[in-house]
Amino acid sequence: MSKKGLLIVLSGPSGSGKGTVLRELLKEEENIFLSVSATTRSPRPGEENGVHYFFLSREEFEAEIANDGMLEHACYCENYYGTPKKPVFDRCDNGQDVILEIEVQGAMQVLEKQKEAVSIFIMPPSLTELRERLIGRQTEDMETVERRLATALEEMKYAKQYDYIVVNDSIQEAVKDIKAILQAEKLKSGRMEEFLQTVAE
Amino acid sequence: MSKKGLLIVLSGPSGSGKGTVLRELLKEEENIFLSVSATTRSPRPGEENGVHYFFLSREEFEAEIANDGMLEHACYCENYYGTPKKPVFDRCDNGQDVILEIEVQGAMQVLEKQKEAVSIFIMPPSLTELRERLIGRQTEDMETVERRLATALEEMKYAKQYDYIVVNDSIQEAVKDIKAILQAEKLKSGRMEEFLQTVAE
Repeated sequence: MSKKGLLIVLSGPSGSGKGTVLRELLKEEENIFLSVSATTRSPRPGEENGVHYFFLSREEFEAEIANDGMLEHACYCENYYGTPKKPVFDRCDNGQDVILEIEVQGAMQVLEKQKEAVSIFIMPPSLTELRERLIGRQTEDMETVERRLATALEEMKYAKQYDYIVVNDSIQEAVKDIKAILQAEKLKSGRMEEFLQTVAE
Repeated sequence: MSKKGLLIVLSGPSGSGKGTVLRELLKEEENIFLSVSATTRSPRPGEENGVHYFFLSREEFEAEIANDGMLEHACYCENYYGTPKKPVFDRCDNGQDVILEIEVQGAMQVLEKQKEAVSIFIMPPSLTELRERLIGRQTEDMETVERRLATALEEMKYAKQYDYIVVNDSIQEAVKDIKAILQAEKLKSGRMEEFLQTVAE
């Protein structure tokens, strides 16, 4: 099978449970590769180059941008963060599905350029539930919770611009939904060209 | 749930196994309704009005066409055949998924008008297999088989115009593919408007 893998863009606000859903999906689906981001910030203890991030110097990162080598990038707190194109495209070309777990601004950059990307937005089932999940972490004071909630609300305004919306009420159901999306996307007629050619011969 | 049901257009050439796949799907998914066509031909023994077909007079059928009451229609051997709009739309409005099992010309008419329709084309895994299936029926002479094969080839040229292509190599896998498509389609962001409104409140 030389069929191209899917380029999947996955986003979801803090409290959507996106991380848990993603880990479960990757456990069940071995052919999916989670893209590794690049950054100019310093590695934290335990972080490995190429595993947690590709750690680049500012010069290297800016050279990649100049060479159109980044699928998307942004600058936070004076550090660059982004998705290097080559490892993503190489894997897709080899028939592997690749997931980019990125926030909405980066996702919009990718969707603008990669029309074939499949975009999925994970949402909490309700605002009440979202607030409870954010409070439930108990690691933050209420001011932080309220700020996160406000950010989540801002991010959720972008939901409509994704192809699919998965409501994470149950992790197992959300994983099943994503698997159905990926299965269906592979059956899109635009992705069956090769098969059509063999039959039309 | 006042969410609208899906309008599903299903086609596939003779020998694709479409009928068997469809029967199996309807057995497994109780919320799917198979649309009943209308025709002006006479009922055959055992055929019931409203079950196998809606049997209409020529005048009634032409009045329906004039009133824009048909989703698609065609005339074969001096008889009209078509899909009445109302029973389809009523069920969709009630949240039920409706399948139209129609040939390619009718499907193109529906897809032209109903942009929200989900279209699926069922294909045999190869031309060799298609020929074997057509011969395997042993009810026809070779001339008939060749004519059916030629018609199938003509119909398969339309495959690209459908949203999805399901290769019927195994009936169970084909049914699973269709179920994944329907599950994914319900998660399309355009169909999640109602949910988005409840969360945005």
